[in-house]
Amino acid sequence: MKKSIGAKALIVPTPVWVVGTYDPDDKPNVMTAAWGGICCSKPPCVSIAVQKIRHTYNNLVKRNAFTVCVPSVRHAKEADYFGIASGRTADKFAASGLTPTKSDIVDAPYVEEFPLALECKLIHSHELGLHTLFIGEVLGIKADEDILGEKGLRDMSKFKPFTYNPEIRTYYAVGEYLGKAFSIGQEISQG
Amino acid sequence: MKKSIGAKALIVPTPVWVVGTYDPDDKPNVMTAAWGGICCSKPPCVSIAVQKIRHTYNNLVKRNAFTVCVPSVRHAKEADYFGIASGRTADKFAASGLTPTKSDIVDAPYVEEFPLALECKLIHSHELGLHTLFIGEVLGIKADEDILGEKGLRDMSKFKPFTYNPEIRTYYAVGEYLGKAFSIGQEISQG
Repeated sequence: MKKSIGAKALIVPTPVWVVGTYDPDDKPNVMTAAWGGICCSKPPCVSIAVQKIRHTYNNLVKRNAFTVCVPSVRHAKEADYFGIASGRTADKFAASGLTPTKSDIVDAPYVEEFPLALECKLIHSHELGLHTLFIGEVLGIKADEDILGEKGLRDMSKFKPFTYNPEIRTYYAVGEYLGKAFSIGQEISQG
Repeated sequence: MKKSIGAKALIVPTPVWVVGTYDPDDKPNVMTAAWGGICCSKPPCVSIAVQKIRHTYNNLVKRNAFTVCVPSVRHAKEADYFGIASGRTADKFAASGLTPTKSDIVDAPYVEEFPLALECKLIHSHELGLHTLFIGEVLGIKADEDILGEKGLRDMSKFKPFTYNPEIRTYYAVGEYLGKAFSIGQEISQG
């Protein structure tokens, strides 16, 4: 028997991602986003939800491009800071000591020190209420060599991304390996 | 220096969630979804991406309601199975031994044994390509008592959700506690 806890934006796990944009003066900015997800495989698309009051909102609308950068646990402090400060009043790259690199594919910067960055062209936006959902087509991905194997992304031992828990507002690392997808459930199929 | 690895639907972490729907004959069905995310705080909304060929796609279009259920690691095998079998040919609840409970708020079932379920009314759908993005307004949430504290969701020690890694197709548990959000980055703000 479950308890009804009302209607709220509460689910786990949510990702800790960092959205990179340029502002109209070409200043690179970053904003932490846990409201987002992959939304299509072909063409590859990713969505992020952004409030109108954010500096990133204006940048998205004006530049029509963004990156989604994935920090590892060693940059949890910087990623958290990117969600606290505003690009209107702070230079978040300068304050954190991290490096903005201009994408060679889209008009947006990514964080050089984070292992993975998706380079996205804004293709749709959808006002939902407090947040607007921005959908980007992934035109390219930049990755650190040490998270890659022969055939692309390898196991997560070198790349420890992390998750955010709404409501209790805490971060947890991606941890223990559980098994292969489309595999561990096969025994149920086979009855 | 990063390596360009092309355009694909590749990001980490993605969640392992299970979408509950009724089909036109009132048979409860479940489908595993890693393509999804929160997309608005007020009204609370969540999105999931579903391929047209899925049984869930038709159910969503016809019933205009769904649940997003969050399994813990102890049901990783069942959650994986829900992504392997099709509700057209299998009764996934019967095969897995898990229990469909009808939501008292929306026209959709949730998985009784999973700790958390969001009860959603379909408010938008957006065709993107291989996947259609379905946006649901969260009208209620059901949660197991043992994952709740005084003020709602408590720490993750009793509730071990897990994540999916595209491309390498593996599951990893949510693990080590890293710190409080809007807090661990404060020292950078204070320079």
